[in-house]
Amino acid sequence: MSDSFTITLPAWVAGELPAGPLPTDADRMALVHRLAARNPAEGSGGPFAALVVESATGRLVSAGVNTVLAAGLSVGHAEVVALALAQTRLGSWDLGADGLPAHELVVNWRPCVQCYGAVLWSGVRRLVVAGDGPELEELTGFDEGPMREDWAPQFEARGIAVTVGVLRQEAVGVFAEYGRAAAAGEYTVYNARGNA
Amino acid sequence: MSDSFTITLPAWVAGELPAGPLPTDADRMALVHRLAARNPAEGSGGPFAALVVESATGRLVSAGVNTVLAAGLSVGHAEVVALALAQTRLGSWDLGADGLPAHELVVNWRPCVQCYGAVLWSGVRRLVVAGDGPELEELTGFDEGPMREDWAPQFEARGIAVTVGVLRQEAVGVFAEYGRAAAAGEYTVYNARGNA
Repeated sequence: MSDSFTITLPAWVAGELPAGPLPTDADRMALVHRLAARNPAEGSGGPFAALVVESATGRLVSAGVNTVLAAGLSVGHAEVVALALAQTRLGSWDLGADGLPAHELVVNWRPCVQCYGAVLWSGVRRLVVAGDGPELEELTGFDEGPMREDWAPQFEARGIAVTVGVLRQEAVGVFAEYGRAAAAGEYTVYNARGNA
Repeated sequence: MSDSFTITLPAWVAGELPAGPLPTDADRMALVHRLAARNPAEGSGGPFAALVVESATGRLVSAGVNTVLAAGLSVGHAEVVALALAQTRLGSWDLGADGLPAHELVVNWRPCVQCYGAVLWSGVRRLVVAGDGPELEELTGFDEGPMREDWAPQFEARGIAVTVGVLRQEAVGVFAEYGRAAAAGEYTVYNARGNA
């Protein structure tokens, strides 16, 4: 009887990552969209990806993709994978700990309620999302859970800056293609209970 | 550079677990409180524990404790550990999948916003908590995050029954003792950013 669980980044992700830094928000989000678009076709999970980046330098600390199917764990959303890998690599459960540079999470849509909390407790100082509207749920069929209207001010009140609207149309394009392919039976769809 | 992360249940937990089933809500919650009370003294993390139990039979599928310090990961709350261990053991990211008996999560207080989402997406059909008032935050100093007032009806709307008020005073006692010992410097306190 196992007394531990492990989430491993799918091997194909490494081949998509740049050798150098990602200076701009658009550079970072373009990579997120590339990983998110490829993830369902690889069978790892839904069309979601996230990066932990050093805000000032653009150094990529970690990438995550949705691994619900690959890991067999419902907690394995892209944000959780990226944040936990960054904490593992930096040796700290707090990415905002004294002595560390400021880190941010870049993800392709406003997080679901689980990952909203995961971001809050991670120590990142900034969240960058492509968008926050109903398009994700409408196009993919995933349920994001009961979020509060003041989700962004609640981040700001805890010292986490929020930027919304980086490569938004490209994000919608990834969700639309996922919805089309899922409806056509091209993917294993894991949202029996609707979770993203 | 690690491409995976692992959370392992602290070894002392196994010694606290019963050999047989836990027939009643009180049986289940008494075990949760025992694990929660011991966890900070063992250095694993905060005073929180959770169980995944087969609702009808009382069979214990998994136990979890807060492992933020032990694992070095902010996502390692008791609920996440118990749910992920149960999914690992049962071989399904969905504890409510066809062919599985109904499962429930038993935890010593209303989950924080991260674990609220983790419970929603796990497939459990019932959540049992000792209480849901301000005592946790007041006595321990942890921040539970911005929860919605209608958190319980939102569970019910997704087919997850909610029971509040099992061994409530005993839960408050565990939090009070944690607050006292933390203030006295007896524990490593990890809530730099206030997360539970």
